[in-house]
Amino acid sequence: MVNFTYQNPTKIAFGKEKEKEIGAYIAEDNIKKVLLAYGSDRIKRDGLFDTVVASLEENGIEYVELGGIVSNPVLSKVYEAVDLAKAHHAEAILSVGGGSVLDSAKAIAAGALYDGDVWDFFIGKSVIEKALPVYDIITLAASGSEMNTFAVVTNEETKQKYSIASPHLYPRVSVINPELQKSVSEEYLVYSAADVIAHSIEGYFTASSHPDIIAAYVEANITTVINTTETLLADRDDYDARGEFAWAATQALNGTTYLGLEGYSFPNHMIEHTLSALFNVPHGAGLSVVMPAWMKWYVSQNEGQFQRFSQKVFGLSDAMEGIEALESWFNKVGTPTRLSQFSIKESDLDAIVENAYGNAEAFGLAETYTKAVLREILEKAL
Amino acid sequence: MVNFTYQNPTKIAFGKEKEKEIGAYIAEDNIKKVLLAYGSDRIKRDGLFDTVVASLEENGIEYVELGGIVSNPVLSKVYEAVDLAKAHHAEAILSVGGGSVLDSAKAIAAGALYDGDVWDFFIGKSVIEKALPVYDIITLAASGSEMNTFAVVTNEETKQKYSIASPHLYPRVSVINPELQKSVSEEYLVYSAADVIAHSIEGYFTASSHPDIIAAYVEANITTVINTTETLLADRDDYDARGEFAWAATQALNGTTYLGLEGYSFPNHMIEHTLSALFNVPHGAGLSVVMPAWMKWYVSQNEGQFQRFSQKVFGLSDAMEGIEALESWFNKVGTPTRLSQFSIKESDLDAIVENAYGNAEAFGLAETYTKAVLREILEKAL
Repeated sequence: MVNFTYQNPTKIAFGKEKEKEIGAYIAEDNIKKVLLAYGSDRIKRDGLFDTVVASLEENGIEYVELGGIVSNPVLSKVYEAVDLAKAHHAEAILSVGGGSVLDSAKAIAAGALYDGDVWDFFIGKSVIEKALPVYDIITLAASGSEMNTFAVVTNEETKQKYSIASPHLYPRVSVINPELQKSVSEEYLVYSAADVIAHSIEGYFTASSHPDIIAAYVEANITTVINTTETLLADRDDYDARGEFAWAATQALNGTTYLGLEGYSFPNHMIEHTLSALFNVPHGAGLSVVMPAWMKWYVSQNEGQFQRFSQKVFGLSDAMEGIEALESWFNKVGTPTRLSQFSIKESDLDAIVENAYGNAEAFGLAETYTKAVLREILEKAL
Repeated sequence: MVNFTYQNPTKIAFGKEKEKEIGAYIAEDNIKKVLLAYGSDRIKRDGLFDTVVASLEENGIEYVELGGIVSNPVLSKVYEAVDLAKAHHAEAILSVGGGSVLDSAKAIAAGALYDGDVWDFFIGKSVIEKALPVYDIITLAASGSEMNTFAVVTNEETKQKYSIASPHLYPRVSVINPELQKSVSEEYLVYSAADVIAHSIEGYFTASSHPDIIAAYVEANITTVINTTETLLADRDDYDARGEFAWAATQALNGTTYLGLEGYSFPNHMIEHTLSALFNVPHGAGLSVVMPAWMKWYVSQNEGQFQRFSQKVFGLSDAMEGIEALESWFNKVGTPTRLSQFSIKESDLDAIVENAYGNAEAFGLAETYTKAVLREILEKAL
């Protein structure tokens, strides 16, 4: 159990109608003007936008609107928003949407207080020393961004899907109302399940030493995601299942399941970021393709932990059986497990390997994930 | 899954030698003088006191010493310390010790900024509106006080063991170095195990609705405590086991295992506080007596959850088997399960019931825990 320091300052407001409190939370911090970031116009049609604006107005908070953030959010939009935030002297960013909106909001928050190019933070040319406060209403449970320091954005020009991390990027307040997540499509529900499972297994399998207690929390999160996804596919209105799914998503990447681990890495994310950057694959769908392939390549390096996974999550005994059970479950609920499901062919592998190797360098994993290794893994996903 | 708001501001500095950083953490908050609270002189003999003082001095922090805090900490000592803190204009309280020292430190922190009697907070006559910042080095893993808002103190005159809770009482920084906990006696290790299990099961069994994901975290904590206690009884120097035990203790009562629960209560603590107040029984030892008795009385009210407990923690199927397995485990590791082990006799029950009923009123549980019910439970513990 290696040394760690942990402090997570984000306030979670969880439950029904909590979005109505957002203006009050922002006003508590004495903020008078926000940039209101969102994705599609759906929030205008379903009433959420009006609810949020009413809460802001009740609390005397002005807002500048920035809609149109897409999934796999892009740098050009972040640039546009940074300019807008600066021009209007926004004092905070309010994100209303899923992880893509929130990740963009975090990048905007850092960019708004920086004179240079916000991309500098992503490529390690500069370190985030301050950021505007970020508030959010999270409408898709997947990224865990609502309680962590991370943000991932794609530079469309260079085809780099890169991330930033800074304690300045913890949201101040995150609203998680499971009812707002009911409208998520079945497709995105199962992609999100894959995303949460990916966040769970990266540390679980790659750490060179891993406390049992943390492993048990991870298994609780994965089991919750599997069970509640099945419940929600049968009945999208099951509030408790929706709530437990959402909380598992938050817990999977808020740091608590990475405490005391030694030497872990995020290889599945590293490879998936390439699929999203080159083919605009939904992140979770890309992950459900990468994970079984990576696991089959990696299993012999940590067989005991795979046996444990097999036993605790699926009640099986053999390491390989657990991997196959996970892959079968992905197939059963309908998230892809093969590159061919994205119409990606063997002839695309060169470009994928090239881009993924760039990620490996950015992740500091190029020594292990050579081009030959990346190809070997990807071939298992064809 | 009921609505909740959660924010836990405590910074955890976990691991080897972390106590050496305490001065730096306090200095970061621009504090120049602390009241240094501790228990016995053991910390002077084993070098911890010197390490702490060196860290304070390096960071230009003065200190006023207050030793002699006992387990089941008493109000008279808190009074003495409040006067000392006021007289010396202490800007913070630094607790070096276990839960008793830290709980006292929290009471002192609230009392130091209050003109009235600090006991007012315990009996609901006044509400804590501010408190000095509290820092701690926790040398016994049990109470969870290092990451929560609670403190329990005994008024020796009135024989009331009562608690306070306030967001102002979250420690700023808690140092958890498992190596410092190696010197805990086997006796106190097993009492502590009972304490952590008690913190775990109160919400788990009493909540009228309980999310599965939270139940799974609770089971992870209990399983960790059971396994690591056995490891530590065989080898007190097992650092990883010591670390996992400590982290389970922190997680069991830092709020995370109580999120989304509806209508829970702390009846085992309510009854145990009487045993400590009247007979100065060690808190954990009292809890291992109360829990099996309470469970046998309560099991029919929530049989499904007891079946789950039996299955998940002990691999058994029947509700009652799980209770018996827990009681057997307490006996095996050597923490008491009968009042007679404290030389408490049937003739003492009147006084116990009377005092416990006072607690029930203070806990708001007097409607359920009538004197007849309390007697029924206690008779099962004779």
